[in-house]
Amino acid sequence: MPELRKDPISGRWVIISVERGKRPTDFISPSQKRKLGGFCPFCPGNEHTTTQEIVAFRPSSTAPNSPGWTLRVVPNKFPALQIHGELNRTGDGVFDKMNGLGAHEVIIENPEHQLSLATMPQKAVEDVLWAYYFRLMDLKKDFRLKYVLIFKNEGEIAGASLEHSHSQLIALPIVPTSVKEEIDTSKKYFDDKERCLLCDIISQDLESGKRVISENSKYVAIAPFAPREPFETWILPKKHESSYAPSDKSFTDLAEILQRTLRQLDRVLDTPPYNFILHTSPFKDEVNDYYHWHIEIVPKLTRTAGFEWGSGFFINPTPPEESAKFMRDAKI
Amino acid sequence: MPELRKDPISGRWVIISVERGKRPTDFISPSQKRKLGGFCPFCPGNEHTTTQEIVAFRPSSTAPNSPGWTLRVVPNKFPALQIHGELNRTGDGVFDKMNGLGAHEVIIENPEHQLSLATMPQKAVEDVLWAYYFRLMDLKKDFRLKYVLIFKNEGEIAGASLEHSHSQLIALPIVPTSVKEEIDTSKKYFDDKERCLLCDIISQDLESGKRVISENSKYVAIAPFAPREPFETWILPKKHESSYAPSDKSFTDLAEILQRTLRQLDRVLDTPPYNFILHTSPFKDEVNDYYHWHIEIVPKLTRTAGFEWGSGFFINPTPPEESAKFMRDAKI
Repeated sequence: MPELRKDPISGRWVIISVERGKRPTDFISPSQKRKLGGFCPFCPGNEHTTTQEIVAFRPSSTAPNSPGWTLRVVPNKFPALQIHGELNRTGDGVFDKMNGLGAHEVIIENPEHQLSLATMPQKAVEDVLWAYYFRLMDLKKDFRLKYVLIFKNEGEIAGASLEHSHSQLIALPIVPTSVKEEIDTSKKYFDDKERCLLCDIISQDLESGKRVISENSKYVAIAPFAPREPFETWILPKKHESSYAPSDKSFTDLAEILQRTLRQLDRVLDTPPYNFILHTSPFKDEVNDYYHWHIEIVPKLTRTAGFEWGSGFFINPTPPEESAKFMRDAKI
Repeated sequence: MPELRKDPISGRWVIISVERGKRPTDFISPSQKRKLGGFCPFCPGNEHTTTQEIVAFRPSSTAPNSPGWTLRVVPNKFPALQIHGELNRTGDGVFDKMNGLGAHEVIIENPEHQLSLATMPQKAVEDVLWAYYFRLMDLKKDFRLKYVLIFKNEGEIAGASLEHSHSQLIALPIVPTSVKEEIDTSKKYFDDKERCLLCDIISQDLESGKRVISENSKYVAIAPFAPREPFETWILPKKHESSYAPSDKSFTDLAEILQRTLRQLDRVLDTPPYNFILHTSPFKDEVNDYYHWHIEIVPKLTRTAGFEWGSGFFINPTPPEESAKFMRDAKI
């Protein structure tokens, strides 16, 4: 019989089809391997076709917006939000709105067009994680901004409009609803038990082992108990950390487990499209006991997302205990 | 400058790109027109290939599961939930689960393979709406069930696995999170103002007119203030009604405005894929002052849904005031 499972953090219910569990080969999804050839604005030599860089990792002998870089951060050419002006909140009868103040940036992860986060050198993945951190620290200084959403769309089906590996960030004058809900639930749990909800989940999952995909000294990768999509994977620090600001100032272990997880996904699902989203505490309350930052990776394998985000209700044909096993067994 | 808008009912924020508002022709989406030819289990003559019908509209001279019907309701051949057994709620440490008790049914809307809800006779649309009502009334008798989600996936991109026009229902032993959130927000608003939130929205929108698409004596079709997707459209009863159980026991006006809206969408967006979802009060509190049933129609035009349902944050390149105008001007 199928099973209804509740995600403890978001409160959403998911139907897991335990009986007719779909295997990786049941998902038909075009491989997202990169092709060479054609013009790419993110490739070295084409820096003049992007907006002016905000930050770049490059030798001091090279000029901004010229080749020689290993990573660049540029404003999105078609920004969803704009950084200039005063924040203006207004009402219109029953409706609330504000002007679209914020930032929308693109992190061009490395110069090589054909590399993905799974295939680039691990040091390059570490640089991407540092870039996220530097941008968070910088945008935090702007008191108008309340939250920064860092995310990645890999593959056209997952929303990537350019093939060259990149992440994005959107800095917002509000905390988005789904972040607020997670924070509220975690706070309520802490008020009740004086323990962090995700710390409890990690400890329970590490003990049972059945949903654990991999771990290293600092992080664990798990298939969450109530995943929205098959092969959804979360990466979490094993010790409590409320924000994306590791206490030991190192991203080596995170780069290692993130890349390992993406390689496992590529192996098991033949380079699938995916989204990942960094979940971290809002600026206002960055250091706290109740919220636990993490990364959620959601492969885009099924086509029912339209109905599902409309209803908040998910049907997942692969139990996480099975997907975790496929991931653990992947030869990478 | 773009605008951040809050949907009053769900609480979600949406970025509306007011400046670079996309026109209908900017959305590339394959037309969902139906093709004839090939085997279809929903076509007359193939009744033996579906599960046994639960209800059918057919002359009394015809036998169940044989041709002659104008509408059939059958259990989904691959049900997400099953109707047999006791409901069993269990915990596993921090996690909550229950067995997948419920129902998953398919409403085969009419016998003609090539017709859609937009192109079938209006009387056939009325029959579909009656079928929804009959199934709700019947499933309500089962005390184990708390909510029935009625929805439609039109087109492969929107999740339809068969082309022949059909809707689905999923009967659940819980109220889904997004329904619960809408109910809670509406209740809170009512407690505060002693008015229904959606009644207030309808009255404000009818007064300004800028987001109104069409109306008839009983219903209004609007582009909501903070739509998740371009051309999202809601159909609501103008007078307060908490559940999908019209006081005058007629679906004529609803069929008229629903079909008119779908024809406008087909005209403006060249037969786009879409999802629609019926939002109604849970069985437990069907008659109330605070919740207002309605239908949400969401065309599937953009590809960023993956990130967006992950973050609960939406970017919509077409302001509803513009989409409403395109819809109003459509020659149907």
